[in-house]
Amino acid sequence: MTALYDQELMTPAKLESALRAIGAERYHHRHPFHQLMHEGKLTHPQLQAWALNRYYYQSIIPIKDAIILSRAEDPAFRRAWRKRIIDHDGDGTRPGGIEKWIQLALATGLDREEVVSEKGILPGTRYAVNAYLDLVSKRTFLEAVASSLTEIFSRDLIALRIDRLRQHYPWLSGGLAYFEARLTQAPEDARFALAWVTEHARTRAEQGLALGALRAKCDILWAQLDALHFAYVEPGWPPPGAFRQPGENPVA
Amino acid sequence: MTALYDQELMTPAKLESALRAIGAERYHHRHPFHQLMHEGKLTHPQLQAWALNRYYYQSIIPIKDAIILSRAEDPAFRRAWRKRIIDHDGDGTRPGGIEKWIQLALATGLDREEVVSEKGILPGTRYAVNAYLDLVSKRTFLEAVASSLTEIFSRDLIALRIDRLRQHYPWLSGGLAYFEARLTQAPEDARFALAWVTEHARTRAEQGLALGALRAKCDILWAQLDALHFAYVEPGWPPPGAFRQPGENPVA
Repeated sequence: MTALYDQELMTPAKLESALRAIGAERYHHRHPFHQLMHEGKLTHPQLQAWALNRYYYQSIIPIKDAIILSRAEDPAFRRAWRKRIIDHDGDGTRPGGIEKWIQLALATGLDREEVVSEKGILPGTRYAVNAYLDLVSKRTFLEAVASSLTEIFSRDLIALRIDRLRQHYPWLSGGLAYFEARLTQAPEDARFALAWVTEHARTRAEQGLALGALRAKCDILWAQLDALHFAYVEPGWPPPGAFRQPGENPVA
Repeated sequence: MTALYDQELMTPAKLESALRAIGAERYHHRHPFHQLMHEGKLTHPQLQAWALNRYYYQSIIPIKDAIILSRAEDPAFRRAWRKRIIDHDGDGTRPGGIEKWIQLALATGLDREEVVSEKGILPGTRYAVNAYLDLVSKRTFLEAVASSLTEIFSRDLIALRIDRLRQHYPWLSGGLAYFEARLTQAPEDARFALAWVTEHARTRAEQGLALGALRAKCDILWAQLDALHFAYVEPGWPPPGAFRQPGENPVA
């Protein structure tokens, strides 16, 4: 790794491999919560807690992309990026990603109202997700775009997840349309963003910013699973007001 | 509780008791991490992790108060509130709260550079603390002020903590100046803010905002301890890049 972080300008190929190395180390495919999910070891209420909390993340994605759109000065960039908003919000006839995520949550047995009210989500989820909005609002435009590059890694994780959810939780099979759509959307989006970042990170300092933004985004995804894991898997405790598993008592 | 949340305007005394009820339910004196601390059951590295992470919270307090100051239209309010910034940043001759917190961290055996660099703090700490800046920046001014009302509850917690840290961790005794100062500062600050909030929350809706802001602030404090507890006490794992206890391995 050290060689990647010295002060010399990297070639686009070298920058790409430095970005990929961050995914290998820090992307949330390595998080034990996902590992338990893929081994079929999460309980039904734990999957509900996951669907409920992750809804909050899904719900801000078009807002995040609209912030990026609002900061983009190049019409060609905006034309390419706006696809993401349509993918998530839908076109008014076909459901977008947010509605598909609601379908997944319904397949776990949650009520639509319970999900979209965003009550019962963990404060830790809220803070981590809001940190993503903060990042794309306040850091440089390059960093805002680079923070999307976790999509480079998402196809493999989603393909595995579809397979394992079908295997271990067949009652969820009707709710997987979100992931099926992402199998093609994420690689398209990642290709565009990766090409843009490698082209526009023109100094070693800018390349460092792009790498840092991807690391920060990995932290944001990881922290969401930490919050879930601690509240619902390890003998932790959801804070007052959060979703509870049946039979679970508040901290005494 | 229900009676406190109906739609009728509360008297100042009733609003105060509704605010105090939130503290009884949600303030972080009830958090198991603090309970372990007060029972002397935290290890030395766990106390280091606490001092290191909580430093990030301390470091933003004067920024938080400057945001409130920047939103205050009444010179008398600003004169009262600016005391907080001096308390934390010092007057240039006597150390303020941030420097005193560094002294506490040094007493746990951390390096000053390690502390003030803010490297090694948990992403969960960073997100929760930044949520406090977000609250005082974006919500109504009344909510920004009301979010400080956790200070109503802090004197009792600090008095207990000083006693128990001296008892269980006598090697920390030289580092307790921060808490000693807060024993008098916090109640002064709380008295002013409580009087201001009960006077300025003039409709039931505004009283509801004040109660909600205090609840949100309790969540922010609680989530910081959840992050610590999960990473360093329960069999969790600090994320890549965070402070590690000796002998602790990253997630495989």
